[in-house]
Amino acid sequence: MRYYDSLARLIAQFQKLPGVGNKTAQRLAFYILKMPEAEVRSFAATLVEARSKLLTCSRCGNMTDSDPCPICLDPKRDSNYICVVQESKDILALERTNEYRGQYHVLHGAISPLDGIGPDQLNLKSLLTRVKATPPKEVIIATNPNVQGEATAMYLAQILKPLNIKVTRIAHGLPVGGDLEYADEMTLARALEGRQQI
Amino acid sequence: MRYYDSLARLIAQFQKLPGVGNKTAQRLAFYILKMPEAEVRSFAATLVEARSKLLTCSRCGNMTDSDPCPICLDPKRDSNYICVVQESKDILALERTNEYRGQYHVLHGAISPLDGIGPDQLNLKSLLTRVKATPPKEVIIATNPNVQGEATAMYLAQILKPLNIKVTRIAHGLPVGGDLEYADEMTLARALEGRQQI
Repeated sequence: MRYYDSLARLIAQFQKLPGVGNKTAQRLAFYILKMPEAEVRSFAATLVEARSKLLTCSRCGNMTDSDPCPICLDPKRDSNYICVVQESKDILALERTNEYRGQYHVLHGAISPLDGIGPDQLNLKSLLTRVKATPPKEVIIATNPNVQGEATAMYLAQILKPLNIKVTRIAHGLPVGGDLEYADEMTLARALEGRQQI
Repeated sequence: MRYYDSLARLIAQFQKLPGVGNKTAQRLAFYILKMPEAEVRSFAATLVEARSKLLTCSRCGNMTDSDPCPICLDPKRDSNYICVVQESKDILALERTNEYRGQYHVLHGAISPLDGIGPDQLNLKSLLTRVKATPPKEVIIATNPNVQGEATAMYLAQILKPLNIKVTRIAHGLPVGGDLEYADEMTLARALEGRQQI
């Protein structure tokens, strides 16, 4: 049996999503078929609307539907601190901590020569313009703890230090609730390096 | 930070899908935002189209976009065999085996008194009409191997036997590649019961 055409196309569409394989795509598609038609229409409309309203904040590069984004506009956020992240979703992760009240800057990637991504492909120019216009007290680099993220952090430190701005990197170490026994050597080495007096 | 409205709605929509929690919904939504807008539009159109074209085959109850469904129309399928399944997606699972060349009948559920589902809520009348009009050689009951599926199988056997139709149930036993040690008692007992001479 073949699926009917539009069902086959729907399954193919779901398979394009990250982490969705053949079986999951089938399950999702069949779920859609069981949904009331009005709900499916509203789902489809939401997809198109979220995508078509998408803007990039001209100040920090965050994904938003208004420019500047709500964080850049928020007078309660401390413009003395700029936290640099790779992606907009990293902002959400940091916001969930409820610890950070400064502003952000989204690079939209990390330096990765193998993928042909150099500093020019990142949202860096606007960061330099920003820090030159109103120098912050501190730039916190929260790129991912992998080769590309580290390379980006190093590069940023190099170009920001001549401007006399304090540049920091978020700490590496053991995840809270983790077990020393199961930590990999790199993490453990970094945890030792970053030890603090108590 | 709050997501912008339409993004928040998109995440909520994804969360309605089976097996999609908060984090997965976020990941999917952000993926959509990175897709070209034309692709998002085509995804949305496919959703609506697959749902709006959905028909139920008046003969076998299968989900289709044409009535009767392609399986019922296919002259190569043997109408002497009717395999009864709970859901349309079960047909897909059986078709993947490439072993069965008969026809199907979809009940759209199983008898479950606790959920208020009795024989009248299932697609049973059309099955009786069908087997009375052109009696098949065999009705193979492939409902799920759980309490509801078994109850449904028993009920079907009861109403079909007076019509002098051979009624069979698919075998229960150890899954291929499984390990005896890890099989539960019920499965093992059924595997013993269903032993065959070799």
